[in-house]
Amino acid sequence: MAQGRHFLQIPGPSPVPDRILRAIGMPVLDHRGPDFGKLGHEVLEGCKAVFQTSGPVIIYPGSGTGAWEAAIVNTLSPGDRVLMAETGHFASLWCKMARRWGIEVEFLPGDWRRGAEPERIEAVLAEDRAHAIRAVMVVHNETSTGATSRIADIRKAMDAASHPALLLVDSISGLGSADLRHEEWGIDVTVSCSQKGLMLPPGLGFNAVSQKAIAASRESRMPRSYWDWNDMLGPNSTGFFPYTPATNMLYGLREALAMLQEEGLQAVFARHKRLAAAARAAVHSWGLDIQCQDEREHSPVLTAVVMPEGHDADRFRKAVLDSCNMSLGAGLGKVAGRVFRIGHLGEANDLTLMAALAGVEMGLSLCQVPHRKGGLDAASTVLANTVPS
Amino acid sequence: MAQGRHFLQIPGPSPVPDRILRAIGMPVLDHRGPDFGKLGHEVLEGCKAVFQTSGPVIIYPGSGTGAWEAAIVNTLSPGDRVLMAETGHFASLWCKMARRWGIEVEFLPGDWRRGAEPERIEAVLAEDRAHAIRAVMVVHNETSTGATSRIADIRKAMDAASHPALLLVDSISGLGSADLRHEEWGIDVTVSCSQKGLMLPPGLGFNAVSQKAIAASRESRMPRSYWDWNDMLGPNSTGFFPYTPATNMLYGLREALAMLQEEGLQAVFARHKRLAAAARAAVHSWGLDIQCQDEREHSPVLTAVVMPEGHDADRFRKAVLDSCNMSLGAGLGKVAGRVFRIGHLGEANDLTLMAALAGVEMGLSLCQVPHRKGGLDAASTVLANTVPS
Amino acid sequence: MAQGRHFLQIPGPSPVPDRILRAIGMPVLDHRGPDFGKLGHEVLEGCKAVFQTSGPVIIYPGSGTGAWEAAIVNTLSPGDRVLMAETGHFASLWCKMARRWGIEVEFLPGDWRRGAEPERIEAVLAEDRAHAIRAVMVVHNETSTGATSRIADIRKAMDAASHPALLLVDSISGLGSADLRHEEWGIDVTVSCSQKGLMLPPGLGFNAVSQKAIAASRESRMPRSYWDWNDMLGPNSTGFFPYTPATNMLYGLREALAMLQEEGLQAVFARHKRLAAAARAAVHSWGLDIQCQDEREHSPVLTAVVMPEGHDADRFRKAVLDSCNMSLGAGLGKVAGRVFRIGHLGEANDLTLMAALAGVEMGLSLCQVPHRKGGLDAASTVLANTVPS
Amino acid sequence: MAQGRHFLQIPGPSPVPDRILRAIGMPVLDHRGPDFGKLGHEVLEGCKAVFQTSGPVIIYPGSGTGAWEAAIVNTLSPGDRVLMAETGHFASLWCKMARRWGIEVEFLPGDWRRGAEPERIEAVLAEDRAHAIRAVMVVHNETSTGATSRIADIRKAMDAASHPALLLVDSISGLGSADLRHEEWGIDVTVSCSQKGLMLPPGLGFNAVSQKAIAASRESRMPRSYWDWNDMLGPNSTGFFPYTPATNMLYGLREALAMLQEEGLQAVFARHKRLAAAARAAVHSWGLDIQCQDEREHSPVLTAVVMPEGHDADRFRKAVLDSCNMSLGAGLGKVAGRVFRIGHLGEANDLTLMAALAGVEMGLSLCQVPHRKGGLDAASTVLANTVPS
Repeated sequence: MAQGRHFLQIPGPSPVPDRILRAIGMPVLDHRGPDFGKLGHEVLEGCKAVFQTSGPVIIYPGSGTGAWEAAIVNTLSPGDRVLMAETGHFASLWCKMARRWGIEVEFLPGDWRRGAEPERIEAVLAEDRAHAIRAVMVVHNETSTGATSRIADIRKAMDAASHPALLLVDSISGLGSADLRHEEWGIDVTVSCSQKGLMLPPGLGFNAVSQKAIAASRESRMPRSYWDWNDMLGPNSTGFFPYTPATNMLYGLREALAMLQEEGLQAVFARHKRLAAAARAAVHSWGLDIQCQDEREHSPVLTAVVMPEGHDADRFRKAVLDSCNMSLGAGLGKVAGRVFRIGHLGEANDLTLMAALAGVEMGLSLCQVPHRKGGLDAASTVLANTVPS
Repeated sequence: MAQGRHFLQIPGPSPVPDRILRAIGMPVLDHRGPDFGKLGHEVLEGCKAVFQTSGPVIIYPGSGTGAWEAAIVNTLSPGDRVLMAETGHFASLWCKMARRWGIEVEFLPGDWRRGAEPERIEAVLAEDRAHAIRAVMVVHNETSTGATSRIADIRKAMDAASHPALLLVDSISGLGSADLRHEEWGIDVTVSCSQKGLMLPPGLGFNAVSQKAIAASRESRMPRSYWDWNDMLGPNSTGFFPYTPATNMLYGLREALAMLQEEGLQAVFARHKRLAAAARAAVHSWGLDIQCQDEREHSPVLTAVVMPEGHDADRFRKAVLDSCNMSLGAGLGKVAGRVFRIGHLGEANDLTLMAALAGVEMGLSLCQVPHRKGGLDAASTVLANTVPS
Repeated sequence: MAQGRHFLQIPGPSPVPDRILRAIGMPVLDHRGPDFGKLGHEVLEGCKAVFQTSGPVIIYPGSGTGAWEAAIVNTLSPGDRVLMAETGHFASLWCKMARRWGIEVEFLPGDWRRGAEPERIEAVLAEDRAHAIRAVMVVHNETSTGATSRIADIRKAMDAASHPALLLVDSISGLGSADLRHEEWGIDVTVSCSQKGLMLPPGLGFNAVSQKAIAASRESRMPRSYWDWNDMLGPNSTGFFPYTPATNMLYGLREALAMLQEEGLQAVFARHKRLAAAARAAVHSWGLDIQCQDEREHSPVLTAVVMPEGHDADRFRKAVLDSCNMSLGAGLGKVAGRVFRIGHLGEANDLTLMAALAGVEMGLSLCQVPHRKGGLDAASTVLANTVPS
Repeated sequence: MAQGRHFLQIPGPSPVPDRILRAIGMPVLDHRGPDFGKLGHEVLEGCKAVFQTSGPVIIYPGSGTGAWEAAIVNTLSPGDRVLMAETGHFASLWCKMARRWGIEVEFLPGDWRRGAEPERIEAVLAEDRAHAIRAVMVVHNETSTGATSRIADIRKAMDAASHPALLLVDSISGLGSADLRHEEWGIDVTVSCSQKGLMLPPGLGFNAVSQKAIAASRESRMPRSYWDWNDMLGPNSTGFFPYTPATNMLYGLREALAMLQEEGLQAVFARHKRLAAAARAAVHSWGLDIQCQDEREHSPVLTAVVMPEGHDADRFRKAVLDSCNMSLGAGLGKVAGRVFRIGHLGEANDLTLMAALAGVEMGLSLCQVPHRKGGLDAASTVLANTVPS
C-alpha cells in the first residue's frame, strides 16, 4: 500500500536531508583521538550560532526529554519552587518531570490554544517578594498545539518584576526553525534536541547555558552524574567529552550546522514563517479551525488543526497514511483524537508543504470530513506571492 | 536559493528510492568470485519478469543509447533496410544512429503528437513483397512527447502483413512504468536502461532478445565487440560477464527488482496510469494543451505540456527550478522551448505528483502564463476518487 | 599522512559493518506510527537473545555511562550499601558514580591485572549477616585492562553466602563478544551499550533486568525520570517508547541483531576467543607483558599490553596512528602512558587482527621499543591452526 | 563462514573508500540542469591532472573494455595495420578485439613475464619504411602479470625510428596508482576505467586523447556512434554529454579526484611503489617466484605470484576466501591456475597490505604449499624502514 516516498510531516522527527544521512553513515572514529577533538570543537562552537549565544552549549547522547532533565537537575534543588505555564502537552510533561524531582511547580493553567502569557508571569513574580521562585520554565514552541510563546516578552516581564529567577526555556521544536535568541533574551538554559530544526535523527539533547545557570549548578543539591554540566565543561573545552559521545550523530550535526549557515539563520526563520502562513491559508480555506488562537503566536514549525465535531483525527491520520503514505502528527493529551498536526519544520520547502496539504485535502475527502475546496490554491497563492528574491 | 528537497520531475532519470541508493553504496565485490555469481544470476533472471519474457536479457555497463546501438549492431548488417516511425525526438535520434551504422531507414514522418501508427506500418510492410525490410524499429514510450505507441497493435499489423521483419522496440522510458510485454507482443529486441522505471541511476543498458533476434545476430555482418550478445550469453548462463560489469549498479538492480515484485507489476502499471490521469486533469483545468493528442496513447510515464504562444518553456522551467527547487523536462528537438514535460515515472506517488503540479502552478503564476486556477483541485479529486483499495 | 582505510582497533567504539552503517543512514520514521511499532517490537525482543534472557531489555538513547546510572537509580536508594571490586578504570568510574548518588560503596581494592575475585566477594557477603549490602556491582569485561571477571563464579559465591544482594553487572564491552548469560548467571541488571560487541556507533544504552530488579525498582527512593524502567516497560510492551527513541540507531540495532543471529552467538564467542589467543601469541613472541595476569580471565574483547619501562605508550600510539593510520586504545587512569590496548571485538576477523598486530609491530620498530621479531608469525600460526571448519 | 570485513585484494575493482561510496549514494540529478553542468565541468577538467594532460579526457558510461573499443573505432579504419606486444592476458584480449574490428595486428610474442620491449618495437617500426603501421598499442600495466611496460622508453623508441604511428596505451589498471604521463610521453590515446586507481566501482571508461588522435578520428572510417569522440567533445565543452551520463559515478569521480589531489599524485605513486616493494619482500621470503621477471617493470599496482609446481592457485585462492574472507586475483589465460595476484592499488595502505600478506601466508599453510616463514616480518620491515616523513 505505502508505495514511493514517505512524507514525514509530523512536527518532529523531521525529514533528515540526504547530506546529513550520508554524514551519519560514515565509519565511526576514536572518540579520544585527535580527529575527534577537531570534530568536537567544531560542533561545540558551531552550535553557539544556532542558539544565538556566546556561552557554552552542552551536547548529550540522549533525547530532548533527557535535556529537560539536565536543565532541572543542574539548576534546581529538591523543594525549590518554579513557575510554569500550561501551554500544552509538553509543558505538562515537563511539569510532571519537575515534580518527580521534588520541585514545587506553580503551573499556570492554560487552554492549550496560546503561548505562555507574559502578563500573568509578571503578576506572579511581582507577588513573589521573597523571591522564592527559583525559575520560570516555559516551552518556546509548544509542539502539541502550534503556539509559540513570546520569550522576549517573558524576559521583559521578569525584568519588569525585577525578579532574579532563572529562565529555563524548552525550545525542543523551536530551535533552528523559529527565532530563538538565547543570549539576547536572557535565557539561562535553552533545552533542545536533534530531530527538529536541526534536521538530524533523534539521539542528541542540548542545553545552552548562561553563566548564571552555571553558577546555580554549583549550588544545586540534586544528585546527578550523567547530566552534570561541570563534568562536561572541562573536557568540552578541548573538544572532548567525559564519556563516549554519539559520534555519528556529531558528524550529522556538523553537516546540519553547515547547512544552516549556508542558508543563513534569518533566511531559515523567514522560510518557516512563510510556509506556516501558507499552511494556515489552506486550513482557513477548507473552513477548518486552527488550534492556536493568538495571531502573535502561530508557530512557524507546525500547524495544529482542529477536526470538526464528530470526526476522529486519528482515523483521519490513518487514512492519510494508508492512501498517501504521509505521516501527520497526532493530537496529544487533552486534544487526543481532536487535533492533527502538520509539521513544516527543518528542511521543509514549498513543494513538501504543498504535498503535505494535498495529502490532508485528499484525506478530508476520503474521510468525508466537511470542508470547502480551494485550500491548495490558497496555499500556493500565498507561496507564489511571497517567493524570496 | 534551492533549499530543501529537490523534486526531480523530469521523465528520467527518475528519483532513486533510498533503498536502492543504499544498495548501490555498498562496497564493491570481486566480479569473478562466487558471491558475484549469485548476484549475476539473480539479476539476470529477475529482469525477465520486468520485460515479461522467458528469454535472455542482456545487461550492459552503458546508457540507453548504448543499448540502442547494441540492438542495431547485433541484428542488422550494413545496407539493411528498416522501417521506423517519427514519433518524436528519440525516434529521430535512433534513426540517425541507424543511418550512421549504414542502415537504410524508411522514416515515416510524424507530427510528434501521437505514437507510431499501426495502419501505416502495415501498409508499408504489405508493399514490401520482397521482404527487403529487415526490421521495424519503434519507440514504445516517446519520452519527448508523452505518447505511448501501441506495440501490440503494431505486432498485429506486422502479422497482418505476414512480414518476417524483426520488431525492435525502444522501451527506454516505458519499461517498469508502462506495460511492456516482450514475449506476448512478439518483440525481438526490447531496448531499455536503468534510470527510468527501474528507478536506478543511469549506467546500465538492456537488450531483451528473442530467439529470432539471436539467430539474426549470427547472420549480422556488423563489426562489434563490446555489444556482442554472443559474448554475453555464454558467461551469463552462470551469472558472470565477459568483462567487468557495473557491480554496484547491479546491487541496485537487485533491490529495484525486489521492489517491483513486492508491489506487483500490474499494480505498478495501474499506479502510473492513475497518476497520469491526474496530471492531465490538472493540465486541462489550467486550460493548457497536452502534446499527445491521441486518447489511446497518453503516456503513464510523463505528461508533455504545450506552452501558450509567446511564452518560453525554458524560461518557465528555470523559474520553477529557482523558486520551487523542482526540475521539469525540457522540450527537445522540434519542440524545444515550446513544451515542458512532467515526469511521473518510477517511484512516483500521489504526493510527489501533487507537489510537482503545485510547482507547475506556482511557476505559471510567477511567469504570468495565462491559465485558470483549479488544477490542483482537479488532480487531487482524480486521485481521491481512485484510491486503490 | 593518514591515507587509506583507518584501522579502528580500540576496544570500542568498534568498527561498524557496512550493512549497519547503511541501515542507520535510512530516512527517519514516525516514532508513533505503525511501522515504528514493528521495529520497536523487533529490537526489544531481539535483544533478549544477545543478553541470553527471557526478561525485558530496556533501551535508552544515551551512552553506557547513562546505562550505569539507570542501573543505580532504579535499584538503589540513597545510603544503600553495595560491594564493588576494583578491577580497573571503569570499575573505579562506576564506583565514583554510585558514590555521587549517595551509595556507600565497599570497594575491594585490586591491582588492575585480574577480574573480580569470587572468593573475596563471598567472604565479604558471608560477613554481612544483616544483609545490609543491597547489591554486588561487578564489571564483566574490564575494558581498561583486558580482564574478564568470572560472573558465573561470582554468582556461585553469592549463592554460597546465601546472600540476597542484587547482582549488577557492567557488560558494556563484553556483550556480543564475550559470553554473558544474564538469566543463567542470575544477573539482576546487565548494563551495556551499542558501540562494542553490538557493532553500532555510540548512542544507545541498555539495561537487561530481572524480575527481582524490577521489584527492587518499586522500592527505590532515588529521584529519577529519564531512566525510569517503569515508564519504559509499559510502552515497550507494544513496541513503543515513552519519549522519542534514537530511531536510526534502532535500524542499526535490528541489522546488528540479524548479523549476530546469522553467525550464531556461540560462533561469535569462539571467534573472539580465537582472535584473542592469536593476539596474546604475538605479544608473547615480542617479549612484551600482558596486563591481565590470570589465565582464566584473558579477555576475548581486547588485549592490553604493558609497555617496557622507559617507553611511553601514548607516544607509541601516536606513532602508530601517524604511520599506519590505526587507532589503538590508550592506557587509562592508573595505567595511563604505561599500557596500550588492542581491540579485537565486534566485527573483527583474522585479517583485521593481523593488520592490527602488523601495525603494532611496525610501531614498536619505529619507536625503538625493545622487542623480538616473530609476533606476526606466531599469531598467524595460531590462526592457521584453528581455522573453524 | 565469511565473517567480518571482506578484504578485496584483487587488482581491480579495488576497494572503494567510504567517502566515495557515500558520494555515489546521493540522489540523482537532472543531467541537463545547471548543477549538472558544474559537476560535468569539474570532473572533465579534474581528470586532466590524473592523466597528466592538458588535452581532453572523454568519459563514457561503460567498462574499460568499452574504452578499448572507443580507442580503436575512433582512430583506426578497417584494414589498418597496428603493432602490439603480447605482455599478457589483457594485451591478448585487446589484440583480439582489434582483429574483430578488422585491424591487422602484428602481435609481438611475449612470455608474460615482462613488459613490452622498446627495442623490439623500435626494430619493427624502423623496418616499416612505408609507415604502414598506423598505431602502436601497448598495455601500460599488464594486470594479468604485474609487469609495467616502460611507456616513456617506447615513446623514445618510436621517436628513434622517426615513425608517425599513433601511440595507444591501455592504462586501465595503471592510472592513478602508477605514474602515467599522457602528454609528456606523447601518448595519443590513454585508455582507462573507474575501478582501479580511481577507486570507484566499475562503470566508467576513459579516453584521454591528443590532438593528433582527434585529427586521426576525423579520418577514421570505422562505423561508430556511441563511442564517437566528436559527439562528446562539443557538449563536454560546457560540462554536458550527448547522452545520459552515469551521474552518480560522476559524483564518485569528483570525490576520487579530490582525494588524489589531497594526497598529491607523486605521493600516491610513491605509496604504491613502497607497498609493492614490501609485497615482493614477502614473496621472496616465502621462497616463491614472482611472475614479472624484469626488475625495471615490477608493477606498483599488483604482485603476481607463481604457485609452486603441483599446487593449484585457484584451490589456494578458494581456501583464502573461505578462511580469511579475502579475494585474491586469479591467474588468467595462459597462467590460469598457476598464478595468483595480490592487488595493492587504489586506496591500499600499509595495514591493508599486511592483512593481505597475512591472508596469503595463512592460505599457504592451510593448503600445505611449501614455503618459508618470515614473509610478514620481511614486508613489515620494508614498510617500517620506509615510512614517509
